[in-house]
Amino acid sequence: MNIDFNVLYKNRRNKLYEWLIDHEVAAVVFQDSEARRESAIRYFTGHPEDAVLILAASGEAVLLPWDINLASQTAHADIIISFTDYKLKMLSALQGVLQKLDIPTDTRIEIPPSTSYPEFLCAVQELKFYNVRCNEGGGAHQAVTELRSVKDSYEISCIRQAAAITDELIDLLEKESKSGGIKTEIDAALLIERECRNRGCEGAAFSILAAGPERSFGIHCFPSYTKGAFPGEGMSILDFGVTWQGYRSDVTVTFLKGKLSEKQEKQIALVEKAYAEALKLYKKDTPVFAPAKKAAEIFAKEKRKMPHGLGHGIGLETHEAPLVRQTTEPDKLFKSGMTVTLEPGLYDPELGGCRWENDILITETGNEILTHSRIIRL
Amino acid sequence: MNIDFNVLYKNRRNKLYEWLIDHEVAAVVFQDSEARRESAIRYFTGHPEDAVLILAASGEAVLLPWDINLASQTAHADIIISFTDYKLKMLSALQGVLQKLDIPTDTRIEIPPSTSYPEFLCAVQELKFYNVRCNEGGGAHQAVTELRSVKDSYEISCIRQAAAITDELIDLLEKESKSGGIKTEIDAALLIERECRNRGCEGAAFSILAAGPERSFGIHCFPSYTKGAFPGEGMSILDFGVTWQGYRSDVTVTFLKGKLSEKQEKQIALVEKAYAEALKLYKKDTPVFAPAKKAAEIFAKEKRKMPHGLGHGIGLETHEAPLVRQTTEPDKLFKSGMTVTLEPGLYDPELGGCRWENDILITETGNEILTHSRIIRL
Repeated sequence: MNIDFNVLYKNRRNKLYEWLIDHEVAAVVFQDSEARRESAIRYFTGHPEDAVLILAASGEAVLLPWDINLASQTAHADIIISFTDYKLKMLSALQGVLQKLDIPTDTRIEIPPSTSYPEFLCAVQELKFYNVRCNEGGGAHQAVTELRSVKDSYEISCIRQAAAITDELIDLLEKESKSGGIKTEIDAALLIERECRNRGCEGAAFSILAAGPERSFGIHCFPSYTKGAFPGEGMSILDFGVTWQGYRSDVTVTFLKGKLSEKQEKQIALVEKAYAEALKLYKKDTPVFAPAKKAAEIFAKEKRKMPHGLGHGIGLETHEAPLVRQTTEPDKLFKSGMTVTLEPGLYDPELGGCRWENDILITETGNEILTHSRIIRL
Repeated sequence: MNIDFNVLYKNRRNKLYEWLIDHEVAAVVFQDSEARRESAIRYFTGHPEDAVLILAASGEAVLLPWDINLASQTAHADIIISFTDYKLKMLSALQGVLQKLDIPTDTRIEIPPSTSYPEFLCAVQELKFYNVRCNEGGGAHQAVTELRSVKDSYEISCIRQAAAITDELIDLLEKESKSGGIKTEIDAALLIERECRNRGCEGAAFSILAAGPERSFGIHCFPSYTKGAFPGEGMSILDFGVTWQGYRSDVTVTFLKGKLSEKQEKQIALVEKAYAEALKLYKKDTPVFAPAKKAAEIFAKEKRKMPHGLGHGIGLETHEAPLVRQTTEPDKLFKSGMTVTLEPGLYDPELGGCRWENDILITETGNEILTHSRIIRL
């Protein structure tokens, strides 16, 4: 694919500018820092992290990166100013930029919904000549979340590439587990860390969770991986993803080794059933909560309960909209172009845990399974 | 050290209960999730992550872990209830616990300072029979931050262990870089990931940053490590830490290889000078901003500027109080028992970057350098 990134990011911003004009918002602010990641900045400019981005309805994008040297290599924006010029203070930067862009006073400025209550009080005071808003729902940030929940063709190509590399790694993990090349949780995790980068990925999508049979009962095992045996006799879980140009994959493979008990086999079969039945409901115009409800019903019949959601959107973030949960609002429907995980799992301190997770693209006619994780019997 | 963890955590909580009583606060809430980490929960209960903790002035600690199975192995608290019983909703959990503990209405309840403005509005409404507070300064959360900025003897023993393992790894990295065992950024990073776990660490303290000469100009290189050559001709940076029982180390080693230019040598000498001069000011009762000011003056004389703070507290978090910055309030003084990084650095797109970082314990008589990172000439 031959991409003009200037055009790509500008087109994305133009969609938001339209929304801002329609909703009489003069400017919207995004902030990404170690304390709270905000991938909308990468979505709109390509700059990966540690920055403030101000998008004005007048059609200007001002990026304030912490690292101006990095931005010179990555960022597409109309104006780039070092964030250190404002001593890394978001409100100072915002005030400066509003003046620089001649944004009229008394207009509406939207700051991030994650802004803390104490910070909000400061913002209202420091920007007292503006109408400062911090909206949980209905604001520009939610509009961006909705916009981003349906991926454009460049995004889908990136997610496909992340998925393809993930599939290669699953095959490699299976082979090395069978041949004895993987003996510990560390071996499994570091194979992924090395081989995803060797294939051009930015890295793993999140902390790899490798849990041998002693630890697989945990939803998210802690610590994430250890020198413990992997895969050992029983049920082992490996939850990982990779990042390609910012876009993530997220899969969980369960490894089964040795003779399992009847109860263990029943738990596995139940997860497989929930996966198969829920998958049928991953389709356009179906309520997002529907597969989660279906899986919960299947588990409830056997007096089991899943302690986490059934899935989540995946893109520049590992977890993004939509969330596939029973509590998701009934009017949220799957749309063509959404990329969503499906990850039923059951956990028991005695039996161990089993989770099966793949990434699914919602299409016009149904769905396409992008990754090919499986329950592997060694 | 033979530790009774029940007593250890109870003692820590007792200190906070005293504060709550003195300040007429009935209960305080902490929340840790993937979206925002809050290590106070581990500090008060030992439970590592994904939970809500409610501490009541009446002397009760109620933990609501997402993963009840994990909590049964890690948590020290008076009452443990699965967070999924409240559908992972903090406000529902809080309401339930306030009732369960018979906390009188109209009393003061402090929710996390990071609570977003929209969440705060919900909290005030849902808990309308209580006096809900969300304080940036002066509240219970800040009291905890202050309390935790001075480490107890168990904490110092953990940080010492993290530092000792870090030193072993620095020696190993130097040896392997010289022998050719490390050829790429991946090699350097994965040596750390593997060897810290082999030595009993929970893992690396944060995303390891390994930047060969092409990328060392970045404060935080992006991506964190690649298949690029390391250490190559010029200046390479390796920024890493390890986690021992939750406690972190944080060091940066700069590797120098081949003949450097006069400008490069000058940049390095300047960083070394700032390090040496600033270190003298890491001592009890000295203002925390003083070494940062000193370093900035040294750089300014040569018309250079450092784009980040000089240091930060380190403990259960990689970055915690106090922050060693020029902007730190003048009344913040170093105290005996604080553990703080010292990390001057200079970066240039042409020359590359150089940072030298160690972890320092403030003592009664001066300081003790816990880690022994250095600028290594190959």
